[in-house]
Amino acid sequence: MATISAQLYEYELPEASNVALVGIDMQRDFLEPGGFGDALGNDVLRLQAIVPTLKRLIERFRAKELPIIHTIECHQPDMSDCPPSKIKRGKGDLKIGDPGPMGRILIKGEPGNGIIPELAPIAGEFVIYKPGKGAFYATNLELILKEQNITHLFITGVTTEVCVQTTMREANDRGYECLMVEDCTESYFPEFK
Amino acid sequence: MATISAQLYEYELPEASNVALVGIDMQRDFLEPGGFGDALGNDVLRLQAIVPTLKRLIERFRAKELPIIHTIECHQPDMSDCPPSKIKRGKGDLKIGDPGPMGRILIKGEPGNGIIPELAPIAGEFVIYKPGKGAFYATNLELILKEQNITHLFITGVTTEVCVQTTMREANDRGYECLMVEDCTESYFPEFK
Repeated sequence: MATISAQLYEYELPEASNVALVGIDMQRDFLEPGGFGDALGNDVLRLQAIVPTLKRLIERFRAKELPIIHTIECHQPDMSDCPPSKIKRGKGDLKIGDPGPMGRILIKGEPGNGIIPELAPIAGEFVIYKPGKGAFYATNLELILKEQNITHLFITGVTTEVCVQTTMREANDRGYECLMVEDCTESYFPEFK
Repeated sequence: MATISAQLYEYELPEASNVALVGIDMQRDFLEPGGFGDALGNDVLRLQAIVPTLKRLIERFRAKELPIIHTIECHQPDMSDCPPSKIKRGKGDLKIGDPGPMGRILIKGEPGNGIIPELAPIAGEFVIYKPGKGAFYATNLELILKEQNITHLFITGVTTEVCVQTTMREANDRGYECLMVEDCTESYFPEFK
């Protein structure tokens, strides 16, 4: 049993490998200059800053052959999985499904929707395509965690106050022991991190 | 169609009665002097302040015969629905299931677990017993909303940054049009509201 200093509680890590790394929505459209986030006027360089740190953490997990789960926020091309309330609420001119600088906004398979090349999943890693902010809603994440006997989650990714926090709340309700890795998560807004 | 001034968007309310009021966790243990929240050192008077306002809103919904949904955070007496991670993390001496000033902490049916008398549900109103912070997790809330053709939710209750926000995030992912009623929600911590 290892203990990691954390808030609000010390984080106790079992010796057995029941821990997974969750990388949330490290997608080109959120992180790259010229993407959707950038087009909305956000400072994507803030988010870029965590990439090297998260990359090192991913490499540690790979070296120890521990499970890595990547999530991608997206909808089907026909948007059958996108509630009208979300389409209506696009900020500014760009709404979900509209043509954006790197393909249709938040549509699966578009260039901007993919994970940034630096953190691209490799064979054997899990990719969760999620239609919500929370990674448990309408996905097979819970099934994967149960099948892999995962009880502990290292949570990373963007953005802290939206998809990361929503997913961590869902995970807490479901009884997973979560550690938010502070230097591997970021927000467009410093006060929200 | 009525429009309510709100952030981040104007809230458009359909004429048809597809709106429900959700009152989250207005429980004696969180709101009353001598309860669990009080025993943890929280200022329950902060939360008491919204009771008259919420009561008026509930009465308006009753007068218009619109659906009202109350939630109660609780676990079964045998705690079979409570993950070990949550039991372990009780703050201070009082953990879930322990005997508290108004009965066992967060256990269904205990005196402190019930809704405060001022806002007690009446016949025909829904009560959701929820084991998580989010009201959609492991409950029949989504089923009720679908059966009642509810598309719009007025969200109220306590505490703002925990159960209220978690539930609103879940509702947003599921496509419900949510309005958080600012003067009908409160937190123990002013900065979190």
